[in-house]
Amino acid sequence: MKKIPKIAVFGGGSWATAIVKMLCENLHQVGWYMRNQNSIDYIKENAHNPNYLSSAEFDVSKLYLSSDINELVRYADVLIFAIPSAFVKAELDKITEDFSSKIVFSAIKGIVPETGLIVGEHFNKMHQIPFENIGVITGPCHAEEVAMERLSYLTIACTDVKKARLLSKCLASNYIKTKTSDDIIGSEYAAMLKNIYAIAAGIAHGLGYGDNFQSVLMSNSIREMKRFIKKIHKMKRNINNSAYLGDLLVTGYSVFSRNRMFGNMIGKGYTVKSAQMEMSMIAEGYYATKSAYLLNEKNKAKTPIIDAVYAVLYEHKNPKKIFKKLTELLD
Amino acid sequence: MKKIPKIAVFGGGSWATAIVKMLCENLHQVGWYMRNQNSIDYIKENAHNPNYLSSAEFDVSKLYLSSDINELVRYADVLIFAIPSAFVKAELDKITEDFSSKIVFSAIKGIVPETGLIVGEHFNKMHQIPFENIGVITGPCHAEEVAMERLSYLTIACTDVKKARLLSKCLASNYIKTKTSDDIIGSEYAAMLKNIYAIAAGIAHGLGYGDNFQSVLMSNSIREMKRFIKKIHKMKRNINNSAYLGDLLVTGYSVFSRNRMFGNMIGKGYTVKSAQMEMSMIAEGYYATKSAYLLNEKNKAKTPIIDAVYAVLYEHKNPKKIFKKLTELLD
Repeated sequence: MKKIPKIAVFGGGSWATAIVKMLCENLHQVGWYMRNQNSIDYIKENAHNPNYLSSAEFDVSKLYLSSDINELVRYADVLIFAIPSAFVKAELDKITEDFSSKIVFSAIKGIVPETGLIVGEHFNKMHQIPFENIGVITGPCHAEEVAMERLSYLTIACTDVKKARLLSKCLASNYIKTKTSDDIIGSEYAAMLKNIYAIAAGIAHGLGYGDNFQSVLMSNSIREMKRFIKKIHKMKRNINNSAYLGDLLVTGYSVFSRNRMFGNMIGKGYTVKSAQMEMSMIAEGYYATKSAYLLNEKNKAKTPIIDAVYAVLYEHKNPKKIFKKLTELLD
Repeated sequence: MKKIPKIAVFGGGSWATAIVKMLCENLHQVGWYMRNQNSIDYIKENAHNPNYLSSAEFDVSKLYLSSDINELVRYADVLIFAIPSAFVKAELDKITEDFSSKIVFSAIKGIVPETGLIVGEHFNKMHQIPFENIGVITGPCHAEEVAMERLSYLTIACTDVKKARLLSKCLASNYIKTKTSDDIIGSEYAAMLKNIYAIAAGIAHGLGYGDNFQSVLMSNSIREMKRFIKKIHKMKRNINNSAYLGDLLVTGYSVFSRNRMFGNMIGKGYTVKSAQMEMSMIAEGYYATKSAYLLNEKNKAKTPIIDAVYAVLYEHKNPKKIFKKLTELLD
């Protein structure tokens, strides 16, 4: 691999925009795929994304923008995907280039709904990327604070730590600190599960539970997350590291989290459908809940919180009753 | 011990008031000491504490109120102390009755400044209470939410678990869930340390750090707390239980926490003196910082956050510089 790799980011949302911003601090050129040509034209003219993180200004001369996904797959050595999990399969299906020899990092928090796989597994199974070429970028990190250049910490996970280290360097700056990890599976599942716990926090808030209960819920969530992940991939990991606990907290305690907001509406009495329509997007945690629940039917970790959220979202059980029962199972 | 013990609460603040309220759900009579006779007269007439948690209404016929501490020490089998740690020694010094055979629970979060001891040790060393008769009541629990009868979880710790169980029963109600623990030392130190981390969270907020950093700070705080407590009393404990992690979160994420508020003012540029004057009270964490720092000079756990708060509060170092250095030590 060359010393400075060619990197392209795939996605036009706030997290993709934040990652492009971070890379621009270090690289002379950053590839950026977004499917909407109008947004590309806008960025070229106005130096910021019209729809997301519009306060982040770009040096347009550094951006290699294209709405042709194959053009940027060809261009880059390292592909960073930051597309919402619900659309990732449709986007990946557009790729006709063979990219099985490229390095692929996922900044996607969730599960590919069509295959029920976490994104790393999806790349491996569906696109023949070997696991040592697959990595994950996780927070705790609200994209909005990256735009404001507020100090944030990222964890870059890859079983081949050299590749994690390479990307770490490309992302680090005076407002981004990075660390590497070899726990790609744990990091991916943590990033996915935290969205379910954020929905739970939102439901609890919507039902009128207070801060005392929220702290108990988060304390139980991290223990549940540990049990869940351990069943999938047992290894020595400190679940209180920023990539797991930090990521849970930044989402669970954020009033801006879409997942928490979605849960909050459910707690306040919206149906799942009407909450989704009201938000005009589907919270990642909605899909994650189903996948996690089904996966755990085999693994049988004790997961009362995931079970409660599943019962509310997919079995249309009464949130008030389900959460009343849940409170008996927490401690 | 009789089946229903006589219980008295010592203290007139919000946490004492909340505990009296909880006990009144289960007992026919609750002793309540507060030094201010005017407050007692007010409560008798108006059925609520004039100064704290005034929305909590009492059935006055259940309250055995007195401003004579010895009267209530004589009365009760179980003494619950909920006096701010800064005043606890002065109050205890008033006791002329021998209470070495009584059961003593501490709901005090901190260290007795004059002796540098956690409250349990202070009772043991200064008042000859055997350790098996000493217990601790910990949250996560804002008193304000008890007044509103919002579901809260308490942990009651005592080396003699039977005594913990007894008090658990007296405190539990439809809005209070209790669990018992035998980790009295860990619980006390956790309750004390969390105030230091809340000050750190406040300083960071005051300096302009955002939510991404706060989550990293909390993730590092719980790991630091674990290391600190392990040096003092090594035993099998899950630091992610509500009594430790939950208590840290409810304080660290609360905008109402006096410790966080105090830190926030320091971060915004107030001197320690002026912040204390402005708040017209001294945050518990101020004393805790010194005690924890000095104690750890011997124990040598890695405690960058406590060290940073100590440098700011006691060595009057520049918070901006100290926290900039701290960010290098977190991950």
